[in-house]
Amino acid sequence: MRPETAAFQGERGAFSEEAARRLLGRRVQVAPCVRFEDVFRQLSEKKVQAAVVPIENTLAGSVHENYDHLLRFELPIVAETSVRIVHNLIAPPGVPFRKIRRVFSHPVALNQCLNFFARNPQIEKTSFYDTAGSVKMIMKEGLEDAGGIASELAAVNYGATILRRSIEDDRRNFTRFFLLRRPEFARKYPRKTNSRTRWKTSLVFTTRNVPGALFRSLSAFALRDLNLAKIESRPLRGKPWEYLFYLDFLGHIDDPVCQKALGHLQEVADFWRVLGCYPRGD
Amino acid sequence: MRPETAAFQGERGAFSEEAARRLLGRRVQVAPCVRFEDVFRQLSEKKVQAAVVPIENTLAGSVHENYDHLLRFELPIVAETSVRIVHNLIAPPGVPFRKIRRVFSHPVALNQCLNFFARNPQIEKTSFYDTAGSVKMIMKEGLEDAGGIASELAAVNYGATILRRSIEDDRRNFTRFFLLRRPEFARKYPRKTNSRTRWKTSLVFTTRNVPGALFRSLSAFALRDLNLAKIESRPLRGKPWEYLFYLDFLGHIDDPVCQKALGHLQEVADFWRVLGCYPRGD
Repeated sequence: MRPETAAFQGERGAFSEEAARRLLGRRVQVAPCVRFEDVFRQLSEKKVQAAVVPIENTLAGSVHENYDHLLRFELPIVAETSVRIVHNLIAPPGVPFRKIRRVFSHPVALNQCLNFFARNPQIEKTSFYDTAGSVKMIMKEGLEDAGGIASELAAVNYGATILRRSIEDDRRNFTRFFLLRRPEFARKYPRKTNSRTRWKTSLVFTTRNVPGALFRSLSAFALRDLNLAKIESRPLRGKPWEYLFYLDFLGHIDDPVCQKALGHLQEVADFWRVLGCYPRGD
Repeated sequence: MRPETAAFQGERGAFSEEAARRLLGRRVQVAPCVRFEDVFRQLSEKKVQAAVVPIENTLAGSVHENYDHLLRFELPIVAETSVRIVHNLIAPPGVPFRKIRRVFSHPVALNQCLNFFARNPQIEKTSFYDTAGSVKMIMKEGLEDAGGIASELAAVNYGATILRRSIEDDRRNFTRFFLLRRPEFARKYPRKTNSRTRWKTSLVFTTRNVPGALFRSLSAFALRDLNLAKIESRPLRGKPWEYLFYLDFLGHIDDPVCQKALGHLQEVADFWRVLGCYPRGD
């Protein structure tokens, strides 16, 4: 059997690639994309069999753009995983730590390593478009006074050396990723629906613009003891100051209680759609 | 009386400056800042009397960073306003439209004018750090084949010419701004609390990590017919996969019903704080 191909955003060695390998196995073929929209489009146009996208980080918050793409592309979520974000200082082989004067990385990564930069004032932090891409660049240019901040996978990928491991300020730094497939591959939900807390269902809805509408929508779940794991609001295009709500609850969509909750939601919501039902990640 | 000074993020002529003038009058002195954090700090350190920050846009969504700063700096919200985002193509005086080959602006603004670029394939769009800053730059450099996309105020400020007005794709493009003051200037709430729907109260809370906790928090408002205008979630630092909720409801904090709702919220929330009570904007 040929290994599957999965699209992700970023350069080879990105945290999204690590998530793809965890979700689909070490042998997965990866298709790096420049923009998140390209990742969704690659899957939609059948150029890849799967897509892996970050949806939230425990320090930076939700990746709101991907919520918008989930709604637009209608590619179901079939799995989730969390990756601990370990930032490493990486340099070309042979470059010692004492020679490093500039460190390149994505601004979010640089800002998550402020203690490292405070302890090493001789090093200047420089914004770059991508974490793994910074390692690719310093290797290509053969820079002898520069490093990048990226994953261990990025160091391995580009044959670079890790000078300092785990230089992030806060170790409670996790990113949650979704695995997406095309609709025809996602409808076969496994049958084991009995253990409610082992499954998650993600959905999107809009409420009627009346008092208490969100409260009534949530009551569909709360009154049935279905736990919410996450709620996110996004602006509703064309209706200023109205919102779409994205909600994850614990439960399998085939579970009769969940079916009743969705029926109840239908009574109070203007629009709703299930985005996926998948085993709960770690 | 000397005019007040207000800090905002961006260059002179930014939409935030327009909001500042609307909130504080045409004579307000403005203090442009590079980062949102600097805006909050300027006010906190008493270098300015007020700060104006965007909190949400009807197309792009919330400015999440500013929610984090509202919590951290404890500077109360005392007013809100909405500004319609009108993007204009601006060039140095004497440069005709047919000579324009490059247009600079903030990527969000460029992406909100895609129809204009589709109709004018001879023009290349180029990312710049700021909308008004793009006009400042083309004027300073005296570019004769380039324009910027920014507000009318930016054109006036830098003595540039508007070549095309209102080139944004979607006119339902509004940004909501908050006016912030220091706590000692915000506690004097006006007395007219009777008309509930003319006031808004913003607050932040965390729920205990138990099933139905968000639902129970919202019930404090819904069961008293207090309307929610907005709810936003942000990650809770140090507790992966737990959230802070930012909520706006219609009502004055001194209204007895609102007081009871806040008392009820206190029973079910782990932590809560009022971020401000202010007259509802247009």
